[in-house]
Amino acid sequence: MFSSFGTLFRVTTFGESHGRAVGAVVDGCPAGLDLRLEDIQAQLDRRRPGQSDLTTSRQEGDRVAILSGVEKGRTLGTPITLVVQNLNQRPGDYSGLRAIPRPSHADYTYQLKYGTRAASGGGRASARETVGRVAAGVVAEQLLKKFFSTAIVAWVEKVGPIKAGEIDREQVSRSLVDRNPVRCPDEKAAAQMAALIGKAKESGDSVGGVITCACRNVPAGLGEPVFGKLEAILAQAMLSIPASKGFEIGSGFAGAAMNGSDHNDPFVFRDGRLRTLTNFSGGIQGGISNGETIYFRVAFKPPATIGKAQETVDFEGRPVVLEPGGRHDPCVVPRAVPIVEAMASLVLADLALVQAARSGLAGLGGGQ
Amino acid sequence: MFSSFGTLFRVTTFGESHGRAVGAVVDGCPAGLDLRLEDIQAQLDRRRPGQSDLTTSRQEGDRVAILSGVEKGRTLGTPITLVVQNLNQRPGDYSGLRAIPRPSHADYTYQLKYGTRAASGGGRASARETVGRVAAGVVAEQLLKKFFSTAIVAWVEKVGPIKAGEIDREQVSRSLVDRNPVRCPDEKAAAQMAALIGKAKESGDSVGGVITCACRNVPAGLGEPVFGKLEAILAQAMLSIPASKGFEIGSGFAGAAMNGSDHNDPFVFRDGRLRTLTNFSGGIQGGISNGETIYFRVAFKPPATIGKAQETVDFEGRPVVLEPGGRHDPCVVPRAVPIVEAMASLVLADLALVQAARSGLAGLGGGQ
Amino acid sequence: MFSSFGTLFRVTTFGESHGRAVGAVVDGCPAGLDLRLEDIQAQLDRRRPGQSDLTTSRQEGDRVAILSGVEKGRTLGTPITLVVQNLNQRPGDYSGLRAIPRPSHADYTYQLKYGTRAASGGGRASARETVGRVAAGVVAEQLLKKFFSTAIVAWVEKVGPIKAGEIDREQVSRSLVDRNPVRCPDEKAAAQMAALIGKAKESGDSVGGVITCACRNVPAGLGEPVFGKLEAILAQAMLSIPASKGFEIGSGFAGAAMNGSDHNDPFVFRDGRLRTLTNFSGGIQGGISNGETIYFRVAFKPPATIGKAQETVDFEGRPVVLEPGGRHDPCVVPRAVPIVEAMASLVLADLALVQAARSGLAGLGGGQ
Amino acid sequence: MFSSFGTLFRVTTFGESHGRAVGAVVDGCPAGLDLRLEDIQAQLDRRRPGQSDLTTSRQEGDRVAILSGVEKGRTLGTPITLVVQNLNQRPGDYSGLRAIPRPSHADYTYQLKYGTRAASGGGRASARETVGRVAAGVVAEQLLKKFFSTAIVAWVEKVGPIKAGEIDREQVSRSLVDRNPVRCPDEKAAAQMAALIGKAKESGDSVGGVITCACRNVPAGLGEPVFGKLEAILAQAMLSIPASKGFEIGSGFAGAAMNGSDHNDPFVFRDGRLRTLTNFSGGIQGGISNGETIYFRVAFKPPATIGKAQETVDFEGRPVVLEPGGRHDPCVVPRAVPIVEAMASLVLADLALVQAARSGLAGLGGGQ
Repeated sequence: MFSSFGTLFRVTTFGESHGRAVGAVVDGCPAGLDLRLEDIQAQLDRRRPGQSDLTTSRQEGDRVAILSGVEKGRTLGTPITLVVQNLNQRPGDYSGLRAIPRPSHADYTYQLKYGTRAASGGGRASARETVGRVAAGVVAEQLLKKFFSTAIVAWVEKVGPIKAGEIDREQVSRSLVDRNPVRCPDEKAAAQMAALIGKAKESGDSVGGVITCACRNVPAGLGEPVFGKLEAILAQAMLSIPASKGFEIGSGFAGAAMNGSDHNDPFVFRDGRLRTLTNFSGGIQGGISNGETIYFRVAFKPPATIGKAQETVDFEGRPVVLEPGGRHDPCVVPRAVPIVEAMASLVLADLALVQAARSGLAGLGGGQ
Repeated sequence: MFSSFGTLFRVTTFGESHGRAVGAVVDGCPAGLDLRLEDIQAQLDRRRPGQSDLTTSRQEGDRVAILSGVEKGRTLGTPITLVVQNLNQRPGDYSGLRAIPRPSHADYTYQLKYGTRAASGGGRASARETVGRVAAGVVAEQLLKKFFSTAIVAWVEKVGPIKAGEIDREQVSRSLVDRNPVRCPDEKAAAQMAALIGKAKESGDSVGGVITCACRNVPAGLGEPVFGKLEAILAQAMLSIPASKGFEIGSGFAGAAMNGSDHNDPFVFRDGRLRTLTNFSGGIQGGISNGETIYFRVAFKPPATIGKAQETVDFEGRPVVLEPGGRHDPCVVPRAVPIVEAMASLVLADLALVQAARSGLAGLGGGQ
Repeated sequence: MFSSFGTLFRVTTFGESHGRAVGAVVDGCPAGLDLRLEDIQAQLDRRRPGQSDLTTSRQEGDRVAILSGVEKGRTLGTPITLVVQNLNQRPGDYSGLRAIPRPSHADYTYQLKYGTRAASGGGRASARETVGRVAAGVVAEQLLKKFFSTAIVAWVEKVGPIKAGEIDREQVSRSLVDRNPVRCPDEKAAAQMAALIGKAKESGDSVGGVITCACRNVPAGLGEPVFGKLEAILAQAMLSIPASKGFEIGSGFAGAAMNGSDHNDPFVFRDGRLRTLTNFSGGIQGGISNGETIYFRVAFKPPATIGKAQETVDFEGRPVVLEPGGRHDPCVVPRAVPIVEAMASLVLADLALVQAARSGLAGLGGGQ
Repeated sequence: MFSSFGTLFRVTTFGESHGRAVGAVVDGCPAGLDLRLEDIQAQLDRRRPGQSDLTTSRQEGDRVAILSGVEKGRTLGTPITLVVQNLNQRPGDYSGLRAIPRPSHADYTYQLKYGTRAASGGGRASARETVGRVAAGVVAEQLLKKFFSTAIVAWVEKVGPIKAGEIDREQVSRSLVDRNPVRCPDEKAAAQMAALIGKAKESGDSVGGVITCACRNVPAGLGEPVFGKLEAILAQAMLSIPASKGFEIGSGFAGAAMNGSDHNDPFVFRDGRLRTLTNFSGGIQGGISNGETIYFRVAFKPPATIGKAQETVDFEGRPVVLEPGGRHDPCVVPRAVPIVEAMASLVLADLALVQAARSGLAGLGGGQ
């Protein structure tokens, strides 16, 4: 059941990185939602490798197909199946690695857990698994847009030690983010980041980074105390993304160094309702959205696949030098931007449906 | 279902902060486990307020009772019900706050979500809800100790801006942690932290902090790709704790600034099995434990209840000055240590059972 | 997790038959529902033994207490904990049975499954576990009454071979059902049933029976294709009741002998909406309620505890004669009536909430 | 989430009857299981229409493909995706029915529930949805065979009023069942059944029936008190099959008419373990398998699609005569045999894994 995520809006992803196909089944999506193949494809294109010379040269050219749940461009309320064929299977690339668990990859732990592992590539641990998430995330996003005009925008805030300047989370848009291949809306920082990534690529190394995500127009009331608090489910969602190492909501770790009198968000009356003057809470109080913009950060480690020889041991414990092989991505954060957006969409759509169960009771009763 | 946590080892907590009782039901705990009331009580005593003059002066004096699931000190395999009566109900303390949503509390969001809220105190948003978690966590810990000799130890690493020196996560113990009321094993830092907390208390303010937790002797193979990755479930668990704002596993946010060639954990052969030379992964690779020590950090915001007047608005949007009232805790991290341990125990026990389902198949068949 | 039932309206029962307490936690009940202790107690009184000389002479005298989730007679939206102390513990009664697994009881299978079993009575297999279900069922029923005026009435249709005449399922009420201790609204059949039960009691034997349940004013649209079809969840609910052996919806097994042209329910227009002329479907088509009265039957075996000596073997396989001991109930169906109603209420309340998630989306958005 | 079934061994089905494809994702299947396409295809062939002149003349010619989770004929432990393309789409066939909800079909309730429905055929309510179940069931069956040599065999026991003679449930095999197209191992009764079905087909009518299923070599200890009792999950599974109307375990409804002294199954010592002399319990006591053969019956209504004109009303409530159209199956039970077997396999594999979690704990610990 752990390839599934969500309670009412529930996505199940499937597929190994070098098998026949990857994809997702979305169960519980309401009927009557517009769903166009182009919208899904657009987000997949933001995720795929080979978009720029900053990323891996693998050309995945993912084309998504809808096998069920949609008729004439509208959802039927039945499970939506989204599939992307793996056209570019090259299992041979990885054959040399078979006897050696790659450092900080999943080879060793998959072997311990399952007693086997996919013959090539990272199997389910590969970032390729996220194709299904991104496709499913678009479905969730359609729901959020239709009912709440929710806007979810993520961007690269840090690459290695280079940090972007202040980004206005109330205004930032995907088109702004996509102006450069790093997906950092601070152009000057973006240029430095691109240079750093390029340098890492050249030297066969990799670099990590941090993504920030802002969710605007999220209805108040989402999040289920106590184990389904909105930030808790967001944290699970983000830490389930390959290579992620940390999550913080609102003020986050920096907030831990503040005093309460500074950190508290006083209420004000604006636009006909209660708002908060500051937003250290990150749009969530008591685990429940308060109508302010939700924002959070996700840390990603430097990719473990590098173009350098590494001293390690094989499965039998014998010292070996692992020679570089296969294609690799010197930095995942530019391509992880749509993945973070997808996971945020899935979380919010699901919790919106759960909260809607409360308000919707009065609307039932067609039988009487 | 969101007051429940876990798949096979499943805890459900109940109770409002000023209602009749708080507690938990633990479903799915295997039979035959030793479970002594004293063990549960000991962890509850570490959580309760009034332990030292660093915490709130509320005396909860929590006494736990076992209503079901245990006979003669051993679990039966049936649901274990743990209850703590709320002896010290003082709803009157909070009556003045009724018309004013307290800044950065859950008053406003609970009202929006449920259309009502508990008449006093923080209801389910209060830290008192964690009594059930801590009690249930002891049950999980008994399982982990019995089968794997797992040791889970959390400590305070930061209070406000004060940071402890390096703590040896392979050696640190609860008794070491409990040597001072701050629960920071670096005695010098602990003294500074205590001073800072005391100062915050005096001035009616509050401070945040960071807790680190180490889990030793965790069997390899725990964690369920892809949405049940070990770090993902830990992140959900930690962000579900009241006042938590961030989570990082292993190298965390700092790891995002590193190069891959430095961050990768090479394998070595030691103690008859593969180990890693470094542990930036935090004991988890590909979402699955690798047998190394798991460690993570959790950020906590400064408590929102402070002893200072605050300018805000009431539920109708009229400007008011919120006068301080009720008891408050200037810093939650010392008391949050056993809560972090409890949530870690619940996560590991549950994922251990799930993984055991694979290895246990061959052992069934008693009927034939 | 299997002591829990439901997706959004989720009940967890706890307690062994001769432990300290039995009860339930209801998670996910909306806030603002009236919940009076008397309503819960009234259904518990219909379930408890010792109501008439037809049932066991055990006097349980169950008094329910609400530990959480309710304030001033209204639900808070937080988990509702309902507890009944086991006042009448008499573990000694069963001590002689310890080495001998009672035929058609759970002694043998609990031992195989858990490697242990409760020291006395049937543990969780005992009908006493249903106290929690009945209490929780009242909460569900309050929700259904408030929003849909749903009426759920069960009655005894058969005891041993004696069958009641036609009962009007559109009119039958609980007060009508309770006119006689057998809970069969056909007074003449009820008298025969009472005589049969009395005779079984005298001879130390037991008899089975069948309960029918009608659910009126159920909103159309409940039930979730494909594995959450309304009849599927009802079937699970009913077969989870101790001693139940069968379930049929609408025409049931008799319908299997019919032709399609007779069995189909043609639509008619009545009361401003589509109705069906006949109701062989039992108010459910395609797994979804159609607004007609839902009705189903549940078969119960004769209780396995009898007052006769039985030839069997002990746990070591040695032939023994098991002498009668303990108290027993010659027929469970009169007392199972409120249990069937409770489980039906839990199913319908949960599926109503799930369906409400669809219609409620448009009503969210308070934050904007 | 209701297109998913199971806790650890979890199947999600997808696809509408006349969309692009139908299929299933199986999550949680252990690694290392042999899985051959031919085994899946063989069961699909038993399910598909057009096998004999007793069934609908639609030729589905279903060919299954495996998109993920299997490499070199062995499961990887990752989600297994099984897809069957809908080659024979003929949406036009159903166009005339659009404005008229067909009696006892799901047209009306799907419209009420979702506000829309698939443009043709029965959408998810169609028996075509069960393609995914049957395919997934083979995976479950492989697990059960490998670890326990479990044999699951279903057969037709009744068609209309014609009942088979006694079938030896300890010996009956699939090859015996498949000797005639009715799938009734009593050849004489089978001939009468075939005649009855043929007669119904000719007259444009349909007939119902009853299937019995026996599960041999099921390990003792499966089933999770209290809501996951083995018979409860079986009941849910069976009532989720299209057209099913009833379920009974062991003695079932007939058992309700017996005395306890006759119904109890005394224990005997045989084959080195405790067995029961009789098996009215149907292999389950207290919700847990006892190692005896599990058997149960499932009632199926006569198909609602008939070749006769029917008086009914359209969606607007206007009286109409619904003329026959589309292809139809005069009796579903012969083809439902592999579906019943599939659902039984899914239930047992899942509950076996859950029980294995208990016994498997001691086997973990590879990390230490």
